[in-house]
Amino acid sequence: MKIGVLGTGIVGRTVSEKLAELGHEVQIGTRDPAATRARTSADGFSIVEWLSAHPNLTLGTFAETAAHGELLVNATVGSGAIPALEQAGSTARAGKVLMDISNPLDFSQGMPPSLSICNTDSLGETIQRAFPALRVVKTLNTVTAKLMVDPRALSAGAHTIFVSGNDGEAKATVAALLRTFGWEDIVDLGDITTARGTEMMLPVWVRLWSVTKTPMFSFKLVR
Amino acid sequence: MKIGVLGTGIVGRTVSEKLAELGHEVQIGTRDPAATRARTSADGFSIVEWLSAHPNLTLGTFAETAAHGELLVNATVGSGAIPALEQAGSTARAGKVLMDISNPLDFSQGMPPSLSICNTDSLGETIQRAFPALRVVKTLNTVTAKLMVDPRALSAGAHTIFVSGNDGEAKATVAALLRTFGWEDIVDLGDITTARGTEMMLPVWVRLWSVTKTPMFSFKLVR
Repeated sequence: MKIGVLGTGIVGRTVSEKLAELGHEVQIGTRDPAATRARTSADGFSIVEWLSAHPNLTLGTFAETAAHGELLVNATVGSGAIPALEQAGSTARAGKVLMDISNPLDFSQGMPPSLSICNTDSLGETIQRAFPALRVVKTLNTVTAKLMVDPRALSAGAHTIFVSGNDGEAKATVAALLRTFGWEDIVDLGDITTARGTEMMLPVWVRLWSVTKTPMFSFKLVR
Repeated sequence: MKIGVLGTGIVGRTVSEKLAELGHEVQIGTRDPAATRARTSADGFSIVEWLSAHPNLTLGTFAETAAHGELLVNATVGSGAIPALEQAGSTARAGKVLMDISNPLDFSQGMPPSLSICNTDSLGETIQRAFPALRVVKTLNTVTAKLMVDPRALSAGAHTIFVSGNDGEAKATVAALLRTFGWEDIVDLGDITTARGTEMMLPVWVRLWSVTKTPMFSFKLVR
């Protein structure tokens, strides 16, 4: 499948690598590809080197990447989702499944982050309202990037991932993709308003990271 | 141990029964015992009948119950916690451990409930700030009443409970009590601000109840 991943951070890159490894045609999108190529991060990461190590991945603008993908992935930081999708353009967005794996984290008050949207609304709902022609499915936002694409790296995959969305067919498409990542326990929470629930798991997630000293943990729904 | 349980709802009664069964001297507190005795709920429940079925339990005012307990349990509905503890009086509160097992649920906008406090604050913190002489430990608020006191009723107890609080000795006291209930995987999240995390698990909990059709579920922290 042709997939467009919006966001070149660690989450976007990890998901892009896995999707390409699974044989999908993946483009990864950023606001300004030239600026992204010119940048070297504090830890020495360069996207030019990363792209040359992954020759089956291409870099594009948000608009190019959204046009490329039959399925889109929102892996921007939470506050970047709406601008990125606006830049995608309405033609590229129309009718497509958007797998939203981001969280509305607010670091403005320091650590640990709070949520910029929560309780009576969610980022998933905000995106769905702003772009009604997209079929938004919230998922994967309760685990670290590595576990998103390799759940079996923890406890042989014996933990749970959640999906929220208004469109049953879109959720089935996303669940099928999640199974190719190794997810077995996929719980459909209901419509996109249930994204409030999983986004609000972030505060306990962040505190647990301090306790476990590693982000390689997850929740198993025991029932 | 002498224990005072504030709140005569299903959570307060379930915890009181278990504590009495374990040999503790338990008083259960309400704002107005005469009114509580006179009431019969929509489902036919009468506290008079319940008390006669549990002769080792006594009913008192919030003040009497707080004075009785060496350890206190807040099992009021979230909005009732501060008034109940105000009625308890400062002498009864001083230096005592308060196990806060309630959630700040707001049903004013219908179902599912939202939270009346969240994100940058929590009910646990609110109680601790209002009553600095109490040693507040937030726990058990992520499971239904039956599982609070009988975790082995689900998956032989293979799921996780969290504790949050500023006082290490108080957390140790509460953890010891939890172990007598059957809890084995008890995770100390840190200070009372971490109650934000577990209270914010309620929105996903409520949606999961719709999915599972039973409140007999819980989360296992897989790490």
